[in-house]
Amino acid sequence: MELTEQMKTIVVIFGATGDLAKRKLFPSIYNLYTKGQLSDNFAVVGIGRRELSQADFQANVVKSLGSEDGNTEAFSQHFYYHPFDVTNRNSYIELKALLEQLDETYQTEGNRIFYLAMAPEFFGEIAQSIKREGLTNTKGYSRLIIEKPFGHNLASAQVLNEQISQAFTEDQIYRIDHYLGKEMVQNIEVIRFANAIFEPLWNNRYIANIQITSSEVLGVEDRGGYYEKSGALRDMVQNHMLQMVSLLAMEPPIKLTTNEIRSEKIKVLRAIRPVKESEVHDYFVRGQYSSGMINGTSVVGYREESNVSETSTTETFVAGKILIDNFRWANVPFYIRTGKRMTEKSTKIVVQFKDIPMNLYYNNSEQHLSPNLLVIHIQPMEGITLSLNAKRQGKNIGIAPIKLDYCNNCEDIINTPEAYEKLLYDCMRGDATNFTHWDEVALSWQFVDPISRVWEHEEVRNLPTYPSGTMGPEEANQLLAKDDFFWWSLFN
Amino acid sequence: MELTEQMKTIVVIFGATGDLAKRKLFPSIYNLYTKGQLSDNFAVVGIGRRELSQADFQANVVKSLGSEDGNTEAFSQHFYYHPFDVTNRNSYIELKALLEQLDETYQTEGNRIFYLAMAPEFFGEIAQSIKREGLTNTKGYSRLIIEKPFGHNLASAQVLNEQISQAFTEDQIYRIDHYLGKEMVQNIEVIRFANAIFEPLWNNRYIANIQITSSEVLGVEDRGGYYEKSGALRDMVQNHMLQMVSLLAMEPPIKLTTNEIRSEKIKVLRAIRPVKESEVHDYFVRGQYSSGMINGTSVVGYREESNVSETSTTETFVAGKILIDNFRWANVPFYIRTGKRMTEKSTKIVVQFKDIPMNLYYNNSEQHLSPNLLVIHIQPMEGITLSLNAKRQGKNIGIAPIKLDYCNNCEDIINTPEAYEKLLYDCMRGDATNFTHWDEVALSWQFVDPISRVWEHEEVRNLPTYPSGTMGPEEANQLLAKDDFFWWSLFN
Repeated sequence: MELTEQMKTIVVIFGATGDLAKRKLFPSIYNLYTKGQLSDNFAVVGIGRRELSQADFQANVVKSLGSEDGNTEAFSQHFYYHPFDVTNRNSYIELKALLEQLDETYQTEGNRIFYLAMAPEFFGEIAQSIKREGLTNTKGYSRLIIEKPFGHNLASAQVLNEQISQAFTEDQIYRIDHYLGKEMVQNIEVIRFANAIFEPLWNNRYIANIQITSSEVLGVEDRGGYYEKSGALRDMVQNHMLQMVSLLAMEPPIKLTTNEIRSEKIKVLRAIRPVKESEVHDYFVRGQYSSGMINGTSVVGYREESNVSETSTTETFVAGKILIDNFRWANVPFYIRTGKRMTEKSTKIVVQFKDIPMNLYYNNSEQHLSPNLLVIHIQPMEGITLSLNAKRQGKNIGIAPIKLDYCNNCEDIINTPEAYEKLLYDCMRGDATNFTHWDEVALSWQFVDPISRVWEHEEVRNLPTYPSGTMGPEEANQLLAKDDFFWWSLFN
Repeated sequence: MELTEQMKTIVVIFGATGDLAKRKLFPSIYNLYTKGQLSDNFAVVGIGRRELSQADFQANVVKSLGSEDGNTEAFSQHFYYHPFDVTNRNSYIELKALLEQLDETYQTEGNRIFYLAMAPEFFGEIAQSIKREGLTNTKGYSRLIIEKPFGHNLASAQVLNEQISQAFTEDQIYRIDHYLGKEMVQNIEVIRFANAIFEPLWNNRYIANIQITSSEVLGVEDRGGYYEKSGALRDMVQNHMLQMVSLLAMEPPIKLTTNEIRSEKIKVLRAIRPVKESEVHDYFVRGQYSSGMINGTSVVGYREESNVSETSTTETFVAGKILIDNFRWANVPFYIRTGKRMTEKSTKIVVQFKDIPMNLYYNNSEQHLSPNLLVIHIQPMEGITLSLNAKRQGKNIGIAPIKLDYCNNCEDIINTPEAYEKLLYDCMRGDATNFTHWDEVALSWQFVDPISRVWEHEEVRNLPTYPSGTMGPEEANQLLAKDDFFWWSLFN
């Protein structure tokens, strides 16, 4: 039996009436509670602008869990609502008193997690006020969890980081990238370093290219206002996509400690070849969805979405080619692709191995063997597929591709914990491995900034579009065709 | 669409009233017929000692097919029975007349296959008489198919080969090893040479050992008389097991032609380290089954079987360690294991890869990662399994083995052709790749002879026994334990 560490802490959620709290945080805390990873010595303080009674807040918490059982009532009793004005000093003073009282009641040993699940404008203000008013002066730990976006370019991220750093040290700051909490993203490291057969192949002698796709079926929904300022590059590439590149490309760390792993990931980001503004079109493609069909239903184009400008040039799709200039990866393109209103919801990594040095099976040069592929399925299916070649069944001649499959979540789907559940537990345990270090944030913005600068100043007529329900604009295919590659289909 | 070559030939089966003809040959010829691989220009002549009417023989053929359909009647019309005395010259003269008449009737272009599906005593006599009486004097091809056993040691095999060679050249002789007709045995070559990821790993830098097991649940049944003279070493190791070793170990041939592949296989057999008589106990273990339980039913020991001596020392089980002294395989043991009355019917190859150079996942030295395994399932299940390590599902820590599976015969089981069907078709096409060359036979006997010599002269009390329903005697486990390995279970 694995020994479960039982956590004692107060979690303060700024933005407790918001979507993230309801959809992810309350259920995650509940799961930790029912699994015994959270002791009875915990409390959650919900912070929001509006007035809300204790009873209503607790009812909201119960409602967010989907179904009630014998535990939900007792669980919700640990939740406290605290109406708040982030710019008003008194709010912090009152919060401090509440936290001290709860610390007493629940014996949480002075441990406090401040979770900023809200718009980023006030991150700096809140962090500094928390510090200034003494909310972190306890005998336990104080940690700050921050949701994306962390700035909208390198300069704004630096400003934000300076503000936060005045109140919290780097090792108190937990920058959430929820992709790092996903089961199969965490598995990348294990697949690479716990299996003898992959590491010898994991380099430019045997790998032709690596393709990372994160496609969504949904459009911007009611987040048009946010998305207009962000776009796919900032929303997905700067964080999630580059994080997956780092995990796939990093050298084996000397130990599996937070610092060693981060240090190797940072080395990858430092080795990525910068894309100069004059070269952006050689490496990156953007697109915006037009109207189309999704599952037999017609949907509107991005510019017709609410809170979106009729002349918007915001990209809802990005494809890019990333080169890592080090010994292991020289000349192996990492292709990334992400967008909204695509054919299917799917995040997958396809490692395409080089062709065999000599094809013994066909004299006819027009026939070719399929390359070996290692596919890591991140979501919604979780698993691993290895595509090999084998004898065509029952035939005297001929080779056909076969697939070796492993599914991680086909049975027992309920027991796969949500990313947020694991990340919250990691934060309570003080394990920052699956959070983003400031250096990673900075290097990612540094890489992405020239691309967004070019796109911002580009003429509208140069913005490729793609019909909703497709895998992006034709330009994304051309990006690989230039290198004699193509995107592997995600759907077979 | 694959172009199917339609064969025209007469197949003469010596031993047409026997078990092999009924169970394998008639159904295989029927399958070739219904698939259109055999044209209407074919005839089968059944040869046997006893008298049998044409009608009864054709009825036997139909019966052997299991079920009748619209084709069976027409099919059986191609079958002719010919009573025969192999030592009587007239039998051959009459057969010659019959073949000439059938050649005329069915327009088989003088093509003749002589299939010796009978006891080996008369192989030489028959081959020579066929030649002497002019049965091979046609404008088409003449080919000889021989069933095992091909001698019982090197000396007797040489005698037999000399006799046959006086009548047929080496490239007219098709020595059946029906394992070479099995779908997944034929796949070994494809797995190795059509996949870029295996060849770099396929050597002593990455492979720790290779285990080949062919286990049967049946005992000797009614073949006690034959088996007493043979034993598992001659019945299984000299042919099937060494053939699988060759296919697994051979260097990539420069072309996939019969001669190039055979040449590489022969090089492996030449590189196998000979086992001196004084060393037999270090490399080989034999065993004999005693009574036990098979699927809940008690069964008798080998010595209580009919036609078996009460003091028999015939081995019903062999385990061995084979070393191949070449650059690729130095220090990689190939462990083989085969026997009757074992736990389950199964033929499997397990390639065990070496451990990773450094285990990042456990500081505690008592915990270890499972090695990566590539399992090739030969029968009854056909497929490939790759055992890897992955994150324990839903846990923050811990690694667990996972399996990537491919099953070749789970769906569509009916369409996987039998080994005999493929081998007969190969012989009709003149493709000898999946038959055993004389050099392979000779080298295999050379390897096996010292072992059987030692066992023949050994005292009875040194013969290990194993209860029916188990995986062999304890000595077979010790064989691997000496090298710090163990047999991988075949049943999970």
